[in-house]
Amino acid sequence: MAAVADDGFRVLDEEALVEYIKATPALRAQLGEQLDGLTIKEVGDGNLNFVFIVIGSAGSLVIKQAIPYVRCIGASWPMTKERAYFEALALKEHGRLCPNNVPEVYHFDRAMSLIGMRYLKPPHIILRKGLISGIEYPLLAQHMSEYMARTLFFTSLLYHSTSEHRQAVAEFCGNVELCRLTEQVVFSDPYKIAQYNHWTSPYLDHDAEALRTDDTLKIEVADLKSMFCERAQALIHGDLHTGSVMVTSDSTQVIDPEFAFYGPMGFDIGAYLGNLILAFFSQDGHANKDNDREEHKRWILRMIEETWNLFHQKFVSLWNENIDGHGEAYLADIYNTPELRLLVQKKYMTDLFHDSLGFGAAKMIRRIVGIAHVEDFESIVDESKRASCERRALDCAKTLLKERRRFETICEIISVVQDFSAH
Amino acid sequence: MAAVADDGFRVLDEEALVEYIKATPALRAQLGEQLDGLTIKEVGDGNLNFVFIVIGSAGSLVIKQAIPYVRCIGASWPMTKERAYFEALALKEHGRLCPNNVPEVYHFDRAMSLIGMRYLKPPHIILRKGLISGIEYPLLAQHMSEYMARTLFFTSLLYHSTSEHRQAVAEFCGNVELCRLTEQVVFSDPYKIAQYNHWTSPYLDHDAEALRTDDTLKIEVADLKSMFCERAQALIHGDLHTGSVMVTSDSTQVIDPEFAFYGPMGFDIGAYLGNLILAFFSQDGHANKDNDREEHKRWILRMIEETWNLFHQKFVSLWNENIDGHGEAYLADIYNTPELRLLVQKKYMTDLFHDSLGFGAAKMIRRIVGIAHVEDFESIVDESKRASCERRALDCAKTLLKERRRFETICEIISVVQDFSAH
Ligand SMILES: Nc1ncnc2c1ncn2[C@@H]1O[C@H](COP(=O)(O)OP(=O)(O)O)[C@@H](O)[C@H]1O
Ligand SMILES: Nc1ncnc2c1ncn2[C@@H]1O[C@H](COP(=O)(O)OP(=O)(O)O)[C@@H](O)[C@H]1O
Ligand SMILES: [Mg+2]
Ligand SMILES: [Mg+2]
Ligand SMILES: [Mg+2]
Ligand SMILES: [Mg+2]
Ligand SMILES: [Mg+2]
Repeated sequence: MAAVADDGFRVLDEEALVEYIKATPALRAQLGEQLDGLTIKEVGDGNLNFVFIVIGSAGSLVIKQAIPYVRCIGASWPMTKERAYFEALALKEHGRLCPNNVPEVYHFDRAMSLIGMRYLKPPHIILRKGLISGIEYPLLAQHMSEYMARTLFFTSLLYHSTSEHRQAVAEFCGNVELCRLTEQVVFSDPYKIAQYNHWTSPYLDHDAEALRTDDTLKIEVADLKSMFCERAQALIHGDLHTGSVMVTSDSTQVIDPEFAFYGPMGFDIGAYLGNLILAFFSQDGHANKDNDREEHKRWILRMIEETWNLFHQKFVSLWNENIDGHGEAYLADIYNTPELRLLVQKKYMTDLFHDSLGFGAAKMIRRIVGIAHVEDFESIVDESKRASCERRALDCAKTLLKERRRFETICEIISVVQDFSAH
Repeated sequence: MAAVADDGFRVLDEEALVEYIKATPALRAQLGEQLDGLTIKEVGDGNLNFVFIVIGSAGSLVIKQAIPYVRCIGASWPMTKERAYFEALALKEHGRLCPNNVPEVYHFDRAMSLIGMRYLKPPHIILRKGLISGIEYPLLAQHMSEYMARTLFFTSLLYHSTSEHRQAVAEFCGNVELCRLTEQVVFSDPYKIAQYNHWTSPYLDHDAEALRTDDTLKIEVADLKSMFCERAQALIHGDLHTGSVMVTSDSTQVIDPEFAFYGPMGFDIGAYLGNLILAFFSQDGHANKDNDREEHKRWILRMIEETWNLFHQKFVSLWNENIDGHGEAYLADIYNTPELRLLVQKKYMTDLFHDSLGFGAAKMIRRIVGIAHVEDFESIVDESKRASCERRALDCAKTLLKERRRFETICEIISVVQDFSAH
């Protein structure tokens, strides 16, 4: 068994984990008190943490443990294990607001930075892998728009009183180290020479350099970074890419909100849509003589369109249903006519659309030239083919980021994506 | 002596105050240990708190005590006395950053909500009263621009790391009740029918009603309110009107930051400039055959112009001096050419200018139709004359608020103010 640190923390290996489970009533109960012959498998494929699947004869669960550094880099890049506390908080809060799309938390141990949660059983797979395989998920847009609409609406000032809001904001200010990681890898490193930056070289050497000398782009990125650092609009997931979503044909589950904090809503919406756009641009790299992927590309574009449109519709519906609630952004006796309500909603949703495009594009860029790439592209073995997919995505992202304010509808975005795909 | 509440708090009268001082070493020391025959005078003219001037034979000081309700309304409007804690924090932080323009804090007692600070001796008077009397202060623009530039710059992400910033933001989230008071009286009540709203009636009845049906204005006000509630840009004073500044011909002291929190910088700059504009519009009401106030009006306009221009200059200088510091908004190796630096600074300052105009105008409006008016207008006895001054100020404010984004320089604002004054 691993040594116990002063603060009660120790990294659990499989053996130690069994002991831990046996000593923890909430976990025992989840396994139906049948603790003999547990199967334990570490499946953490992420960059940061350990994830164990625990299967017994009468139940199952997942244990996620944060360690005090970035797993994929090592102890040389320390990272607070307190992130597990914020992940647990966010799982519970988002789970309360959207129980159908967030795994239940069975147990949280702050000293151990350890979360026990529902095991998302097969055929659940990571959405990114499904998209790479060319699988379609008929309920995906419904579910993801529902998740984003509910978690963002109910944690914003459209629903919160300012007292509730500031208290929650203060609590999540504690997750500053994870915010700093995002600030660095999304808003800074791609625009400078940085140790861990990499790209499909030499193909994209000029493209990467062009980012570092693009003044217009850098000015816009500064704006987005300020918004990320200063604007406490809602409790966002903070890392809502397609690798944080597990899916089957009828279930969609959002995991891994360890970057959660009160930030701009557009960061979540953009992360998700931006990663769908990356998936789209990667398809040509996965095409072969049996499958040209054209149908899958069309399906992804439909997903993007439907997700935003359904999000828009659901979000505005929640707003209308709660118009006389305790939310304090737009008091009912000031915004007191149907026309005025329409006007403020239109403005709010348009601003949110522009924010989402900006953040989404920034997330696309960083996945092509920054520290952490996406499997969608990485799994394209032919480097020249990969680079040409990546370049289209990068050029598209630059346009979306710089010109985001001229777009009004998601249809226009689909056209832009198609144009870059045809180049 | 007043009864002691459970939490150690009791409201001090003059007698109890003497006992308190005698028992408090930091205050005794300030009075040179000469504690016989102290003169004590309560001078609180504000809406919220008690302020005592304490003069002994070998020293002097001011004691400010917060009570758990709004003084000018009474116990029916409770208001946390914890505001004194945030006032003391802000006095100390702003005092550290700009010691020449903030009174020194000698002592703070959280349980008693009591601050001991430097007595700003005569001829210090409240700036608002000086402006009403037609007095000119040759160093005012220098001092106020210095105060605003230093307090705002050094508490923003232009100077802070994001770690420092989020920690400070979290702390000041605790001042939520005072923020709520601002939200209500500045961004809500003037745009609806509200209990304590009043105006120079019947003259301004239609003007007040027009505010409540002005959709364009309400949409812009919602934007400002969101920024106030969501954007943690810098540690702002939060109540920086001309009644929070004490002056002599060579000293300028900013008092009363009990509304301090991390909010938009433009809220402070706007409060101050907006109150100067109110002072300007009130002058016609104070003109008489001996003094037409035209010269004083020109001086106030020069003040407005110089304050913004000096602020701009000092703020950008601080930025340039700290370009290689630990501020994280614009990293030196990304914003790495003089041209790019100029571009981002221009954008930042223009956005700040627009924010300041918006907030300044909102503060003007609320002083004419809301709960708390300003002596500048209130001291004009002739109601019809007062109403006509107020109407010009109100119309000017509406234009500034709605059209703020079309202005680039403070000169243009001076012209707008002059135009409305000539109507
Ligand atoms: N509740 C769960 N049920 C099933 N598998 C899970 C669950 N949580 C995580 N996983 C698996 O573990 C992987 C890593 O989990 P994740 O929370 O994303 O960790 P990290 O923060 O290190 O990225 C996921 O990609 C998924 O395959
Ligand atoms: N340090 C001081 N020196 C001299 N007078 C002061 C001082 N602080 C406050 N005052 C006087 O007390 C009045 C009320 O103080 P203020 O801090 O503005 O209280 P409030 O929060 O109730 O508005 C001021 O207008 C000023 O006349
Ligand atoms: Mg993950
Ligand atoms: Mg993670
Ligand atoms: Mg005051
Ligand atoms: Mg007053
Ligand atoms: Mg005050």
